[in-house]
Amino acid sequence: MKIFGGRPTKELTQDICRCLGIPPGQADIFKFPNDNTFVQIQENVRNVDVYVVQTSAPPVDEALVELLLVMDALRRASARSITAVLPYYPYVRSDKKDQPRVPITARLVADLLVTAGVNRIVTVDLTADQVQGFFTIPADHLTAQPVFARYFQEKGLVDPVIVAPDPGAVKRAQRFSEKIGAPIAFIDKRRLGSEVRATTVIGEVRDKPAILFDEEIDQGSTFVRAAEVLLANGATEVFGACTHGVLSGAAPGYLSRAPLQELVVTDTVPVPPEKRWPGLVVLSIAPLLAECIKRIQEGQSVSALFF
Amino acid sequence: MKIFGGRPTKELTQDICRCLGIPPGQADIFKFPNDNTFVQIQENVRNVDVYVVQTSAPPVDEALVELLLVMDALRRASARSITAVLPYYPYVRSDKKDQPRVPITARLVADLLVTAGVNRIVTVDLTADQVQGFFTIPADHLTAQPVFARYFQEKGLVDPVIVAPDPGAVKRAQRFSEKIGAPIAFIDKRRLGSEVRATTVIGEVRDKPAILFDEEIDQGSTFVRAAEVLLANGATEVFGACTHGVLSGAAPGYLSRAPLQELVVTDTVPVPPEKRWPGLVVLSIAPLLAECIKRIQEGQSVSALFF
Amino acid sequence: MKIFGGRPTKELTQDICRCLGIPPGQADIFKFPNDNTFVQIQENVRNVDVYVVQTSAPPVDEALVELLLVMDALRRASARSITAVLPYYPYVRSDKKDQPRVPITARLVADLLVTAGVNRIVTVDLTADQVQGFFTIPADHLTAQPVFARYFQEKGLVDPVIVAPDPGAVKRAQRFSEKIGAPIAFIDKRRLGSEVRATTVIGEVRDKPAILFDEEIDQGSTFVRAAEVLLANGATEVFGACTHGVLSGAAPGYLSRAPLQELVVTDTVPVPPEKRWPGLVVLSIAPLLAECIKRIQEGQSVSALFF
Amino acid sequence: MKIFGGRPTKELTQDICRCLGIPPGQADIFKFPNDNTFVQIQENVRNVDVYVVQTSAPPVDEALVELLLVMDALRRASARSITAVLPYYPYVRSDKKDQPRVPITARLVADLLVTAGVNRIVTVDLTADQVQGFFTIPADHLTAQPVFARYFQEKGLVDPVIVAPDPGAVKRAQRFSEKIGAPIAFIDKRRLGSEVRATTVIGEVRDKPAILFDEEIDQGSTFVRAAEVLLANGATEVFGACTHGVLSGAAPGYLSRAPLQELVVTDTVPVPPEKRWPGLVVLSIAPLLAECIKRIQEGQSVSALFF
Amino acid sequence: MKIFGGRPTKELTQDICRCLGIPPGQADIFKFPNDNTFVQIQENVRNVDVYVVQTSAPPVDEALVELLLVMDALRRASARSITAVLPYYPYVRSDKKDQPRVPITARLVADLLVTAGVNRIVTVDLTADQVQGFFTIPADHLTAQPVFARYFQEKGLVDPVIVAPDPGAVKRAQRFSEKIGAPIAFIDKRRLGSEVRATTVIGEVRDKPAILFDEEIDQGSTFVRAAEVLLANGATEVFGACTHGVLSGAAPGYLSRAPLQELVVTDTVPVPPEKRWPGLVVLSIAPLLAECIKRIQEGQSVSALFF
Amino acid sequence: MKIFGGRPTKELTQDICRCLGIPPGQADIFKFPNDNTFVQIQENVRNVDVYVVQTSAPPVDEALVELLLVMDALRRASARSITAVLPYYPYVRSDKKDQPRVPITARLVADLLVTAGVNRIVTVDLTADQVQGFFTIPADHLTAQPVFARYFQEKGLVDPVIVAPDPGAVKRAQRFSEKIGAPIAFIDKRRLGSEVRATTVIGEVRDKPAILFDEEIDQGSTFVRAAEVLLANGATEVFGACTHGVLSGAAPGYLSRAPLQELVVTDTVPVPPEKRWPGLVVLSIAPLLAECIKRIQEGQSVSALFF
Repeated sequence: MKIFGGRPTKELTQDICRCLGIPPGQADIFKFPNDNTFVQIQENVRNVDVYVVQTSAPPVDEALVELLLVMDALRRASARSITAVLPYYPYVRSDKKDQPRVPITARLVADLLVTAGVNRIVTVDLTADQVQGFFTIPADHLTAQPVFARYFQEKGLVDPVIVAPDPGAVKRAQRFSEKIGAPIAFIDKRRLGSEVRATTVIGEVRDKPAILFDEEIDQGSTFVRAAEVLLANGATEVFGACTHGVLSGAAPGYLSRAPLQELVVTDTVPVPPEKRWPGLVVLSIAPLLAECIKRIQEGQSVSALFF
Repeated sequence: MKIFGGRPTKELTQDICRCLGIPPGQADIFKFPNDNTFVQIQENVRNVDVYVVQTSAPPVDEALVELLLVMDALRRASARSITAVLPYYPYVRSDKKDQPRVPITARLVADLLVTAGVNRIVTVDLTADQVQGFFTIPADHLTAQPVFARYFQEKGLVDPVIVAPDPGAVKRAQRFSEKIGAPIAFIDKRRLGSEVRATTVIGEVRDKPAILFDEEIDQGSTFVRAAEVLLANGATEVFGACTHGVLSGAAPGYLSRAPLQELVVTDTVPVPPEKRWPGLVVLSIAPLLAECIKRIQEGQSVSALFF
Repeated sequence: MKIFGGRPTKELTQDICRCLGIPPGQADIFKFPNDNTFVQIQENVRNVDVYVVQTSAPPVDEALVELLLVMDALRRASARSITAVLPYYPYVRSDKKDQPRVPITARLVADLLVTAGVNRIVTVDLTADQVQGFFTIPADHLTAQPVFARYFQEKGLVDPVIVAPDPGAVKRAQRFSEKIGAPIAFIDKRRLGSEVRATTVIGEVRDKPAILFDEEIDQGSTFVRAAEVLLANGATEVFGACTHGVLSGAAPGYLSRAPLQELVVTDTVPVPPEKRWPGLVVLSIAPLLAECIKRIQEGQSVSALFF
Repeated sequence: MKIFGGRPTKELTQDICRCLGIPPGQADIFKFPNDNTFVQIQENVRNVDVYVVQTSAPPVDEALVELLLVMDALRRASARSITAVLPYYPYVRSDKKDQPRVPITARLVADLLVTAGVNRIVTVDLTADQVQGFFTIPADHLTAQPVFARYFQEKGLVDPVIVAPDPGAVKRAQRFSEKIGAPIAFIDKRRLGSEVRATTVIGEVRDKPAILFDEEIDQGSTFVRAAEVLLANGATEVFGACTHGVLSGAAPGYLSRAPLQELVVTDTVPVPPEKRWPGLVVLSIAPLLAECIKRIQEGQSVSALFF
Repeated sequence: MKIFGGRPTKELTQDICRCLGIPPGQADIFKFPNDNTFVQIQENVRNVDVYVVQTSAPPVDEALVELLLVMDALRRASARSITAVLPYYPYVRSDKKDQPRVPITARLVADLLVTAGVNRIVTVDLTADQVQGFFTIPADHLTAQPVFARYFQEKGLVDPVIVAPDPGAVKRAQRFSEKIGAPIAFIDKRRLGSEVRATTVIGEVRDKPAILFDEEIDQGSTFVRAAEVLLANGATEVFGACTHGVLSGAAPGYLSRAPLQELVVTDTVPVPPEKRWPGLVVLSIAPLLAECIKRIQEGQSVSALFF
Repeated sequence: MKIFGGRPTKELTQDICRCLGIPPGQADIFKFPNDNTFVQIQENVRNVDVYVVQTSAPPVDEALVELLLVMDALRRASARSITAVLPYYPYVRSDKKDQPRVPITARLVADLLVTAGVNRIVTVDLTADQVQGFFTIPADHLTAQPVFARYFQEKGLVDPVIVAPDPGAVKRAQRFSEKIGAPIAFIDKRRLGSEVRATTVIGEVRDKPAILFDEEIDQGSTFVRAAEVLLANGATEVFGACTHGVLSGAAPGYLSRAPLQELVVTDTVPVPPEKRWPGLVVLSIAPLLAECIKRIQEGQSVSALFF
């Protein structure tokens, strides 16, 4: 078994390898002046089970193409099997055709991975569980919910309510709320007639600490607006929790000033120091991924981690 | 263009053909004493664009296999293209791996269809939009929401609330509620400690007529329990609306005695006379499917029907 | 290695496992009220060579779809290899296009199996040897002829004649006749002018015991008519022998009253107690299948069993 | 529509084109000194439906590879569709695994054709109907039986018997015998104990003209031995009829001296002048192939030619 | 027919459309803050033959992924056919495995395009002709050699010599030299012992104007070193000609100061104003691509343009 | 591990097996009178890694088809993996579309091999490195350059020049010249106006021994003409070196009389005694292939042999 990490995933790969007690695989990856990516695996991988850890972080397309190149190099170098470990799945939100003549990019990505030679994937908290069905190869879909459950249980909030920041997030939030024994609410945002959008809380939040729960936070405006509405409806304080801290553009500054007690994310997407602020908590996903890799390699049940 | 209907879809196919002003295609489909299905297309289909209308109704697996056989016969008979029109997609709810070591049958069905020669599918109100991504061939995903909107607008309910009967249905219900300008609520059902499950309403329903909205109703217990809770929470009356009236087993009797003003479904799943009761309203999906087929055949936009 | 059996093959699977000294694999397979089949493998199968025993018995399409679901579940659960053991191959007689615009279902079945993830098949006495060519994956095609040869040799018939019940069965019957050193005859059945069909014996049967030999018996009318003609032509007694005792509908009653000394079949198709009668002999195919599985697993020659 | 013929099929292609009133397509096909075949299509074929007529005649592998090269050239030259017209299908007798560790070459050939870009095939009198199932693309399987029926009906034999020269040919011969209203018999050839093979007639031939009927004649020894046995059993005279006159090696001389009144074949395999003798009748298959091509091109039923 | 252009190819697409007298197709393509690309085709494309013009220019991976997304959107929107027009093929130089454990990216790109739904490609001056063989779909490989031949013939250089800047370029340069009737030379660059690399001219260049000819110029150092050596060996003046003016990084400044009379490129790669200098000549490839598209659409020979 | 050799490669296979200390695998391969090839593997290969050594030698198409048949037999016999060892790749020169409407046969061959079940290939000195990209399975591309370097270094020529016999061979020759520290030249052959072709030396050869270097020699006229021109330009003597000694037709006689000191080839193509002459040196490729097979089997780096 060898584990290689893409450029945006160097640190996470090291963390995973540390958990497993093996050194990361060596590869030479850089860009030529003409912007073409060069990849060369620096170790013999004949008959080796290889894991490639690559997340989707800007520049997103470079990370995706780099992953495809690494896999092509590995299969041509006779690796026995190639597992793509994708902490944050590329283009995960483009998983349906909700407008005319758009691509379903998350499915396309699945096919591209298979075309490049992947034999199995491991990923974390997809926007929709159905994305697992974009593959026919084995796809282990992990969730960071236990990580968040442990964090908030240790925090000891009194009678919190879990709040889905939009209707599409209700199902996932409900699962989490059930796991930690809390009630549920959600934020409804809609256009009223030709006027502006109205944002309302559906459910009871008065006099309770609220945990906004979703699988991903990007620019943060949905979260901030939700927090404001929750406080206006009597919530005592608001926490945010989401697996993938994408935090694009001005999000860090914007969120650091928002009425959020804390925003808790994992490191499926790397959060560089300049994007961090005191209210941001980054939990490590590495132990979960390492355990999963170990179980795959040893033929043990992965689902036993979750069910 | 020719349109063939499977055994459980004879009537719907005739309705579609009537809308289009063409006769249904002739095929000989029956079962041998050994339970093997025999299929023979009775008309020349060389270079013809063929549509096969087949829904998923008990016996479900026979309907699926029959569809595969019809398509194999059509491609071997040199049809120019084969479009499977699937009003109720087979195994649509098995679209994710929510337990260890289960199949993702809805994806498997997609691959089986492609293996048997399908070139395009048309379907209605999938449980999850992501199922469209189980295909790479063109897949037109229609919705009966306009049919329901028209029905309830004509009914003239005063200030109704749209209620999702479980957390997974919130997103779809919210879309419908926005379309008809009504507020939204949902039913949360969960295990409390080691005790029985508690069912609560999240959102405001007092003094309003409620429309329970989902894409499918099977045995009906979720709907009945939801209706009871809504009435207990002050709703003035409760309607049910769902595209696919599966109504398995004792559902008709059970639902006819439930505190539901009306249950409104479409005929994506055939509802035979013995399954009908006074409170059941069956709207026809045939005009929508016929219009879609016409647009496909003439190269017009199908999405223009919805967006 | 683990061996799982489908619903119609529970007993045969247990017999095979007993021969091999291992317990059958545990799986949860049942139907929801909406007639959808649910499958869950109850044991960890990561990196395990799995054999799925499933025969084609009514309800035929359910058995086929169940097999596909089990295989999809197994590959998604990371089984190392999946071998479908198909004692009676589904839709085996639909192996050619002998009429316009019919499917070649036996080929379609082959493709469906591959689509669902099968890596190898084992089957018994196909109607035509060419069906093996419907696969490009390894396909071990076993025959029950040695089982029948042993049975009839022990019976000690004096100078029997082997009779093919129709022209298409002559080749197979000739092979068996050569194996046991008996002469051959066959039954010719044809339409004469616009009149009824005439049935004649081609070959010598006078004063000999006759063994009607085919790979399958379904409703039994061909066999019964053949037996009558053989006796009318002077045969002393008539036995029937065929691998697959399909025995649809009223066949058991009909055959029990027919002028057949004995009908000998194997248990490739399950024969429940209510379908048995005194003149029916059911030989077990389990030892042959168990030996084949053992050899596959140990890398020994399977063909050595037959050539 | 354009029709190209391979090197061994030049004459047949011209005959087909004459029936259709179009000139054969021009292609440059030759071998380099290093024995590599060169192919160049000499006409623009963009968006053209192309038919490639190529039969299997020695050198067999060259003919096969040439066909693959022509098809690769055509698809790269943007032909709209490619139909391979294969009067005598390559390796048609290698259609099953009747010994350990042999290939199923007829299936392999099917896959090679598809790999090289074929969209449809047309072929004549396969050894086994099941070979059609080696393809999932449309495959029109024609038979020369009407050609033979016409020939022998015009000949006016009195009360002939149709004889299958071996057990595997009984089914086909029976179909022909039924078509022309004649009885059937067959030749059984087998090893008796450790002694030599015995050849016997199964069925009645005394005082009748016999027509040995099979789909192919190669070296002719089976036919000659069969003719001798038929005459020894009282047949008045013996004719031979088979679609594919392969006539390998010394077959022409051997057969010309055999007790066969006539041997009737078609030109699916070219019969050069030096292989002909007075008792050989070669019927033309070109009108049948031309009619089939015409119907494919015009979207008419091909099966209507036979059923 | 509709023609869509990617972001880096807007201008070229307009030029092509102007040649053809049709407006460019409308598509909405932009990046979300999270760096994910969004694509929506703004026109109905059902049953339309679509051409997507996309070149490989920095950011290279974004351009590639954008192309894949556009094609996925088009096929899901039921385009009849999709032709990718790739003036400068992505990763064209990564076309072989000249080091251990590297990918063959140009082949991977071919497979990615096919995975995303492409039906045909058009490209210009591949580094190696063999790359056409990376596809099995039709691939029209155009060359700008006639464009350069016309340019230099109009220039009227007296007795020029064509010079390949490295050994791998000799074959292509020789073809050009033969076309314009000029002699050939090449630059040999090699490591001598453990010392530095030596650059020598192989062939006669004294007292002649030299045209350095290659299919691509990137950073320019090979060209500049070649020009210096040519002048040192007596060439009277040096021109550069290459189809793809990649001109990465500091190349424009560096080349503008080099002893090159002129550098002539085409616009297969966009050359923005800030990258241009007086000695740079940019010839338009649009008329060639337009003519090719027209011929494909009308079923005329494309090769007739070149042979 | 077992190694099987095709008919034209019997001797080379024995040499390879001798290097590895194992006996060659037994297979029965012959032609029926009808020119069909029969293949039967005579040893159990279940779960065995199999290597099939087959070169391209006349009859070329028979060798290719034989290879496909052997592989089909092996996969149906459950070989664990199949590696095709192709010392001289079939149709290697047909690797591009340099004329309208020709096939790219080398790519087609790659696809045929994959269709027949190959899992990996090993080959030697392809005409173009890009042919490796015709595969997506692992393809080890070996070179005989070290074999030639050793040979000529031992010969001790004083200050030789490496000469490419045509422009397309310059790159490969340059690599060899760099490896042995010699200068480079090449032969330019072209049509001048409407006159005959002129052949000139580009580069310095006066007073030096010249080594014509290419990957293949077929009829030899290019080499002979090149040798004459080199001598006319002052070369002291001329050697020829090329990996693949195809030597078609009259080449041996013609070359034996040519002004070539020696022609050095390897045995990738078998050179039977009657094709040899005193000036022909045949070096063995077997040790290189044996070492490569050993490394593949043991999971060691193959590239380490060359880089």
